Parts: sequence; C-alpha cells; structure tokens
Amino acid sequence: MQEKTIRESDKQRESMERALKTLGNLIYDQITNREFPWIMMQSRSMDNIIYDSEIKQYVLGDKMVRRHSRNIAHIRPFTQFIWTAWFARELLRLRKTSTLREVYYSARGQRDIEFKNQTESDNIITDLETALNRPREDFNVYPEERSAIFGDLTIEYTVPGYEGKRMNLTEHPDGVMIGPALTSSEFIETSADKVLVIEKGAMFTRLVEERAHERFNALLIHTAGQSPRSTRTIIQRLCRDKKMPVYIFTDGDPWGIHIAMVIISGSINAAHLRGLATPEAKWIGVWATDIINYDLPTENLTDFDLKRLKELKEDPRYREELWQREINTFMKIGKKAELEAFSRYGLTYIVDEYLPAKLELA
Amino acid sequence: MQEKTIRESDKQRESMERALKTLGNLIYDQITNREFPWIMMQSRSMDNIIYDSEIKQYVLGDKMVRRHSRNIAHIRPFTQFIWTAWFARELLRLRKTSTLREVYYSARGQRDIEFKNQTESDNIITDLETALNRPREDFNVYPEERSAIFGDLTIEYTVPGYEGKRMNLTEHPDGVMIGPALTSSEFIETSADKVLVIEKGAMFTRLVEERAHERFNALLIHTAGQSPRSTRTIIQRLCRDKKMPVYIFTDGDPWGIHIAMVIISGSINAAHLRGLATPEAKWIGVWATDIINYDLPTENLTDFDLKRLKELKEDPRYREELWQREINTFMKIGKKAELEAFSRYGLTYIVDEYLPAKLELA
Repeated sequence: MQEKTIRESDKQRESMERALKTLGNLIYDQITNREFPWIMMQSRSMDNIIYDSEIKQYVLGDKMVRRHSRNIAHIRPFTQFIWTAWFARELLRLRKTSTLREVYYSARGQRDIEFKNQTESDNIITDLETALNRPREDFNVYPEERSAIFGDLTIEYTVPGYEGKRMNLTEHPDGVMIGPALTSSEFIETSADKVLVIEKGAMFTRLVEERAHERFNALLIHTAGQSPRSTRTIIQRLCRDKKMPVYIFTDGDPWGIHIAMVIISGSINAAHLRGLATPEAKWIGVWATDIINYDLPTENLTDFDLKRLKELKEDPRYREELWQREINTFMKIGKKAELEAFSRYGLTYIVDEYLPAKLELA
Repeated sequence: MQEKTIRESDKQRESMERALKTLGNLIYDQITNREFPWIMMQSRSMDNIIYDSEIKQYVLGDKMVRRHSRNIAHIRPFTQFIWTAWFARELLRLRKTSTLREVYYSARGQRDIEFKNQTESDNIITDLETALNRPREDFNVYPEERSAIFGDLTIEYTVPGYEGKRMNLTEHPDGVMIGPALTSSEFIETSADKVLVIEKGAMFTRLVEERAHERFNALLIHTAGQSPRSTRTIIQRLCRDKKMPVYIFTDGDPWGIHIAMVIISGSINAAHLRGLATPEAKWIGVWATDIINYDLPTENLTDFDLKRLKELKEDPRYREELWQREINTFMKIGKKAELEAFSRYGLTYIVDEYLPAKLELA
C-alpha cells in the first residue's frame, strides 16, 4: 500500500515536470527551426467561458489565443510566461512550494523579467494553468488561506523530510491545517463514509467538540469562507477516490449559498481547470426554508444581499429547482440566518436535531 | 511531570469556576439581605484608560462603575450580565467551548434575556472579563480566527477525550492550528530556545520548508494578521514560563508595525486584562531602514497608510527610539514592503541571510 501511494504522488510530480519539459521542448524546436517561438492556449475571454450544463460547470470554449514572439505586443507576456514556466519547474525540482505573491517578487529579482504588479503576474500564472490544463497547486504554487480537516483519515506525507510518515487526522482536536503538506499527501485509510463541509471555524469547532465525526461517521472540513482551491481539490478527491458523499453546510444567505455552489460547480475564474468541482456534493443548509421551519433568529437582507440573490437567480449554475426555490424564499422572507443561529435552542441542537434531520433528507 | 501539569490546568479551571461562584454568592447574599443586587467593576470609558509607562501597556484607572438593579436603566445590562455569567459557568461545567457569536445566539433562545445585537452581547462579555479580571478564553469563549504554531514543543491536551494525550508540534508540517485545544494544553517540553512570530501564512510555510525551526532552534508562530488573543497568550506563556525570547517579524508597513506592538504592549480594547502582552518581545523587521539597506521592492504608502503612521507616532506605546526612528523613516521614504519582497533575492534569502542578520542584531 505504502509503496503504491508513494509511487502515485511521484507519478503526479513527474507528469507535471514532463508537461513543463514538453512545453520547453516545443519552444526550443521552434527556435532551432528558425521560427519566432509562440505558444497557444484556450482563450479565457468572457465570450469563450461557456456553461456546460452536462457537467454543470463553466468551461472554456474552442476559441484559442496565440502568443507570438514575432508580435511586439506579445513579447512581454511571452517572456513572462516562459520565465514563469521555468520558475514552476524550479519549484518542482527543488521540491519547494510558493505563493502567487512570492512568484511575483521572485520575478522582481530578475534583470529582464518585469511585472507591473501582482495582478499581471497572477494572470501569467493563470496562462500557465490554461496552457498546461493543470491547477497551479500541481506546480507548487499554493494559496495563503488556510482551512482545516478533522476525522478518521490516515494520510501519508510526500513533502521532503516527511516522506512515508503517516498521521491520523483525529490527532489534533483543533483540526488539521490544509496547507501544501496536507494537500500533497496520500489518503491511506478512513472509516468515515461521508464528508461534512462547514463554512465557519466556530461551527467546525462545535462539531469536533460534539464528536460529530463519530456520530455521523464523517470527515469534517472547514473552508474558512469561500473554499481555497486546494480544499476543493481535497473534497473532490474524497468524493471521487473514496466514494464519499459530500454535504455542505453554510450560513443561510447569498454568500453561504455561493460557497456551496463553488464547491459543487466551480467558479468562473477557474473555468480553465477541471478537477476542482464536486458536482455530486449537496448543499444541505441553512436553507431559507429552514429559517421558516426552525424559526431561526434572523437579520434582514441588505440591499447588497438582495442584489447578489438576483445575480445568482440568473446564473445558469442555479437553474435547478432546489436553488430557485431557496433563492425565491430568501427574497420573499427578506431574512437571512447564520449557522450559529441554532444556538437559540442550545449549543448542541445543531448536532442533536438539525444535522440528523437534514442528512436524512439529503 | 504529567501529573503536575494536569493538576495545573484543572487548577485554572477550578479557579475560574470559583470566581464565577463567588460572583453568584455576592448577588445571592445581597438578595437574602433584602438589598437590590448590584455589581461593581472598573470603568472602561476612555477617560479611565491610562497608559502605564512602567509596564508599557494601557490599563484601567481607578474609576469604578456600579450596575444596580434598583436603577431601571441598569436592569437590562444587569440581567444580561448575570445570564452571561451563568452561561460561562455552564460552559466550564460541561467543558464546552463557544464563540462570541454563539453566546449571542444562545441568549436569543432565552425567554427573558434580550440582546439587541451581537455588539451588545459582546460588550456584556467584556463586562464579565472586567469584573473577573480574566480573559474570556478562561471561561471558554474563543475567537474564530485561526493561527498556527510549528516546532519542537510537546504539548499535553486537557480537552475532553484527549486528556493526557501528547503531541509534538513538528508532527504536521503545515503547522498546528491554534484553537481551544492547543490554547488549553500544557507545554511539556521543548528544545527550542526562542520564538519567531510571523504575520503571514506564506512566510510561515516558507520558514517551515526551509527548516527555520531547526536552523534557528525556534518555535514558529503564525498570527494570520493581527494576533488573536489566544495566540498572544501562548506567546506570553512561552516567554514567561519557558523563558524564551520572542522575535516578531511583520510586513514593513504601519499595519505590520502595529501587529508587533499589540503582541508587545497589548491593545486598548483589552486594557482591562493582563497576561496578554509580552513586553520582552522584539520587533525585528521588516523595518523601514531594512527597505533601504536591503533595497527591497516597494509599494508607495497610501494616504491611509500615512494617516495611520501619524496616529502611531502620537501613541504612547511608540515613544521609544526604535519605533520613532522607523515611523519617521517610513514617512520620509514614503514606501512600504511586504515580507515576500525578499524573494527578489531568491526564495531562501530571507532564511539564509536576512533572518540571521536581524537575530544577531536583536
């Protein structure tokens, strides 16, 4: 088992290095053929971002763009792209991780590579993702945000100094941080049969304290608001590889809804990437209808909330009945409720009553 | 060793429960003496918040306030206070933790306890802190923000289900989350001889990857911006109990400076509490003079940054020469720099060159 899984993660790194090498060879061949080198990738302009109702995600269409070093206007992004690909290769070779910001500042140490600002460098990293069809985490560029996971899952690290070392994710009762080491680890063994995803740290702590992982036989994941992409990858892996159903549990407001939707259907910003979405995942609350049925303490929806609800109503990801019903109900009652609102019935009500009821329905 | 430390944490919980019980007995005695019950505490109004240059912290002065149930205007906060004290006792008795928000919603489940909004309930919790002279973490009300720690420190948990269980904080290379379980744990053993506090997750990950904990023989703490109070308590404990010097390392801008200062001198909001500040801690960078000496990539200071610098310049916590010099330099050069700016010299420069130089000077 151990050998197999180590091979798996090595395989992934090798395949990423191979993709970068292929890219480099293409450029090299163009030059030896006395061509001005160029690269080609799918366009990410709005008119090429298409909602695929089959897989229920935004994807890129067939429009391609070519960056050509013969074109003066392209030389700058072309050079930046090549440097970024080199830097990604270096990260993999040295087995180091980095962040979007560090990549930007690293470029500033180069004599001939110039980025006006981080937005420009982030954009080139997205180009590289698009050209390779792989998320930046695969070439070791990680987000800074930290989310957490807890429950009976044994992982095996693949980061330098920890190779082959295992940890069970119940070991630290504050939850185990989802950083580069956890994201790149192998999932060895779990007795859990589902994943509960929670938007908020406070509720995550509540569930750990109430032993929800045992009572529901679940892994608990805390997204800390909108899920970082590495956390979405982990959710997707648990669903795909371990066949675990995923239930998402957010504040009952347009922002909570959309946290759930991005886990389920992905984001427009990541239309160029696959493997981040978990279409099988289910949003189980807090629904607008829960606010009514459970008589929850509420706040009024603000104008800003209402504007957001209207946007969601028109978004193709929200076409299905459940979403339309809940969006309409939010608009009708003009109220929202937070996860913590269940505390009005006692701190443990959410675990004793609400969650079992919602999981039964799901 | 184990028995001693378990006794220590039990002692703390017992002393907190005793304090709450004493408070209850006072009220009870007043009632049996046919008095209208009342409570007394230090005033937290601005004119009673005084800078103590001896301990270099804001503290409360001698002005007291009395909440008297004979006074119609006081009945509401008095009742809220008593309920909150009862709730704190329940948390301790049941060995559950909670958050400011959950306390607010828990109150909303009570027929006769009313809080207009969370601000009102937060304020009553601060009253309880003031009356008891103990931070809310001592009665199990924790912040939601999560920071992290890494390095050779063996802790022993005291939370239910984990009592007596130990963990070494190098076990998870993404860093170990600082939540209620870590905050309430005993610090058993460490080979480290200093604490490095870092403002940002990205730099924390960098230091872990570069094995800074081994190279500098240090514990690494990541504050995730302005330190949560539990993280400040941990820094203070390591300094006081383990006699470890503390070095703080932030972005080179007014916000970074103030993250360091709040660790060193505490905040105005917590003037009613002791035990959160670590006056021995040292801010070692990124200084304005570092920006010059290391020729770092910079951004211009915004008007908002400049306004903040002017406020800091007048703040009594910033009287000493180092702070004045750096604030003046920031203003003079009109620039700021982030921790990641050192990446211009390569990803490991900060660990290979900058940190050793700054620690030598400190």
